[in-house]
Amino acid sequence: MNNLIKEYKTAINNRLNIVYPNGPKLLKEPINHILKGGKRIRPILCMLVNNACGGRKEDSIDVAVSIELLHIFSLVHDDIMDADVLRHGIQTIHKKWNNSIAILSGDAILALAFKGLNTSPNLIKQKFNSALIAVCEGQALDIEFQDLENISLEQYFNMINLKTAYMLGLSAEIGALISTQDSLITNNFKKIGLLLGKVFQIQDDLLEVTSDSKIMGKSLSSDILLNKKTYLMIKAESKYPGELDRIYKENYKDLDILKVKMVDFLDTNNIFEETKDYINSIFNEIDRLLESCNIRNSNILDLINFIRIRKS
Amino acid sequence: MNNLIKEYKTAINNRLNIVYPNGPKLLKEPINHILKGGKRIRPILCMLVNNACGGRKEDSIDVAVSIELLHIFSLVHDDIMDADVLRHGIQTIHKKWNNSIAILSGDAILALAFKGLNTSPNLIKQKFNSALIAVCEGQALDIEFQDLENISLEQYFNMINLKTAYMLGLSAEIGALISTQDSLITNNFKKIGLLLGKVFQIQDDLLEVTSDSKIMGKSLSSDILLNKKTYLMIKAESKYPGELDRIYKENYKDLDILKVKMVDFLDTNNIFEETKDYINSIFNEIDRLLESCNIRNSNILDLINFIRIRKS
Repeated sequence: MNNLIKEYKTAINNRLNIVYPNGPKLLKEPINHILKGGKRIRPILCMLVNNACGGRKEDSIDVAVSIELLHIFSLVHDDIMDADVLRHGIQTIHKKWNNSIAILSGDAILALAFKGLNTSPNLIKQKFNSALIAVCEGQALDIEFQDLENISLEQYFNMINLKTAYMLGLSAEIGALISTQDSLITNNFKKIGLLLGKVFQIQDDLLEVTSDSKIMGKSLSSDILLNKKTYLMIKAESKYPGELDRIYKENYKDLDILKVKMVDFLDTNNIFEETKDYINSIFNEIDRLLESCNIRNSNILDLINFIRIRKS
Repeated sequence: MNNLIKEYKTAINNRLNIVYPNGPKLLKEPINHILKGGKRIRPILCMLVNNACGGRKEDSIDVAVSIELLHIFSLVHDDIMDADVLRHGIQTIHKKWNNSIAILSGDAILALAFKGLNTSPNLIKQKFNSALIAVCEGQALDIEFQDLENISLEQYFNMINLKTAYMLGLSAEIGALISTQDSLITNNFKKIGLLLGKVFQIQDDLLEVTSDSKIMGKSLSSDILLNKKTYLMIKAESKYPGELDRIYKENYKDLDILKVKMVDFLDTNNIFEETKDYINSIFNEIDRLLESCNIRNSNILDLINFIRIRKS
């Protein structure tokens, strides 16, 4: 792995290890349990962009850690709502403890995120607040969509823009903002972050169906059971209306068979291929954006490539 | 009611009515539902203290509204954990919708609280962050104590200091900080707020047993069922060890009879009287503090009196 990415990941993990050393047992244990997992994509993106804009590690580490904490807060609460039992391969808090502890731990992790911004400029705090509202609204739309028969791609993109992309856009934008006032650069990094977030979510949708739960750390089951709208499901529904519903109704009593049938259907009808093509087209768009504004930094390219080839 | 308190309460409610006008239905509806209830004690305290320190309404209203939002966020999440179905006489979000919507609405209400501080000085934001952590830690201790046989009064006071008093201390302190740099005044108002919070919680403990759920808006049941430690229970346990446990074991199958027996026991053994005496002693302490530092403002006295005689 790229040395700078490795260095930043270690720095972030070291900070997360000591972010909540004291406090009530029922907060300290679950918080320190869940902080152990994760790829740290968002804070690394923030720090790499900051580095590319001439900043030093110590300029971006506080904000980067807060970004990761905000992200983990949202995962802890989302996992309760989705009844997911694994996250990054480790047990979710609500599973290992209970829902109350998970709600409270999530709240406290968010509190730590805000505390970490104590000395940050006001503009960064404001952008952080907007991201928090976006994440909540994205999750609300995700839940709303579970009760709807059909969702357009436009609605889906709006939802993942709020739920996932916004935070990656923020990570890249803030990384730039810390060290440059050039709005062309900060806006372009924001755009790149948003695209990375979009592609990241569509990759997740794909990985959830194609990789096994041991690698992905979570399973397809909750998405199917919750009638979650993913890029693949929306594509399949628009091309073959009613087919997924038929497969579900014929097989819902045996989840394993249902999964096999769904995967088979998506495979046979080229939904996997089309999804991969769409993912590639977004990566190409990111590449063009980097080139056009002369910010083709090698470390950032390495991170993008790490995301491009990820299997979990 | 005091005219200034009425004016401030109206101003706070008007702001809360428009704090989240647009957004996903599954956030907008529950948020605007739950924002309707409440006495607004904390923001009114903040605004009255600010007024007493020479500030104007427009100096304190933003922060006051954020304080109320932070308080409501914590209630929404606590009500899930405690399975309470009523709050301020209206249905809790998790009861009217479900747990997922309540978790998410709470998160979004907290996000709105932070957004409301966008233009506030950094010091106020930092104090706000500390209060959020305190509220989470207080709730964690409250849950921890449910699994313990005995809790000392010291442990109980530490818990309610974090869970309840801290926010009232913050409300009063911030109200002062907005308009004065005199640390003697800000510290004294903080102390008064902390005492008000302490007495408020002990009043709650008492009201939960003595008033019916229609007035109080919530019921004794959840406290008993969750083995919640209240001032009355700790007092009773220290004076008559094992007696409450005996009553519980003899009557736990019928909650109505259990309640009657518990109330009867507390009444017969003067626990009610001693609790009322302790409450009065705290109000006297508040009064001495106001006198000693020459901040005996009539509006603040009216609010304190409103709290002193409250029945819900």
